Amino acid sequence: MGLFSKDIKTMDDLFLHVVQDIYYAEQQILKSLPDMIELATNRDLSAGLRAHKDETQKQIGRLEQVFKLLDEDAKGVNCPAIDGILKEAKELTGEVADKQVLDAAIIAAAQAVEHYEMTRYGTLIAWAHELGRDDIARLLTTNLNEEKAADKKLTTVAESRGVNRKAAS
Amino acid sequence: MGLFSKDIKTMDDLFLHVVQDIYYAEQQILKSLPDMIELATNRDLSAGLRAHKDETQKQIGRLEQVFKLLDEDAKGVNCPAIDGILKEAKELTGEVADKQVLDAAIIAAAQAVEHYEMTRYGTLIAWAHELGRDDIARLLTTNLNEEKAADKKLTTVAESRGVNRKAAS
Repeated sequence: MGLFSKDIKTMDDLFLHVVQDIYYAEQQILKSLPDMIELATNRDLSAGLRAHKDETQKQIGRLEQVFKLLDEDAKGVNCPAIDGILKEAKELTGEVADKQVLDAAIIAAAQAVEHYEMTRYGTLIAWAHELGRDDIARLLTTNLNEEKAADKKLTTVAESRGVNRKAAS
Repeated sequence: MGLFSKDIKTMDDLFLHVVQDIYYAEQQILKSLPDMIELATNRDLSAGLRAHKDETQKQIGRLEQVFKLLDEDAKGVNCPAIDGILKEAKELTGEVADKQVLDAAIIAAAQAVEHYEMTRYGTLIAWAHELGRDDIARLLTTNLNEEKAADKKLTTVAESRGVNRKAAS
């Protein structure tokens, strides 16, 4: 889809474009998770990130089902937002010397990723309902709920498991 | 702060870095809002974006108070995440031909911005409490609550005011 070519004419076009956007985003996230897992020191954090890597793989599979239901080939479009969020995650974690401060930075970076996914899935679910595609909305809702749970788990690791407290001491 | 120079050694360093990041982000958002306002057709949407422009200006003022409380100069650091999110917003809205579909795209773009701000303020508030800076946490909580309200308002405009329904028809 060309830049500023006004290729999006209908709500169906916009919907497909944003599905392609999140499909690309999930693939980039899947590629970036191993680095985050390797950098993490806290065991609950690395276990949580590992579990989310498996979930991300399944989410990509659900997006492929969405493409099938739309009768479209599964393909991504360039997504400058996730590229920027992941670039910032790499820069931020690359700047941190102390291991415990690094865990706090990894959590912040991972939560920025989760929030991007949450907003995109939230939007797509609303649009799917408007377009009368409750079947697609159901698949996207499973992904959204997993992102919300992953975000909440990161907060729990940060607060209850004392990552922030250790980092601040 | 140099790239990969390991300049972040303590939680205080990390906190300051992310305050500088959101300070830069808020300024970029303030610059991008007039374009979004101009593109919007729905009156509730453009009124909401205009109100958020005023709020953003005040949020920048609150961040300047945070810098003062930290005894640091107010300055931003490059934030690839918000640059990417705003670039994507521009590309997405630039691709849409139909005015009503465009309103739906603007709402999606604005909500991605809100979610980025929400995650950063959420992180900073948790860190401020750990660092014993409840005074700073209070200022940041005001900003977070405004972002949450702005996000909810956008959902209301999309759903109750029928932007999505009109765009899908």
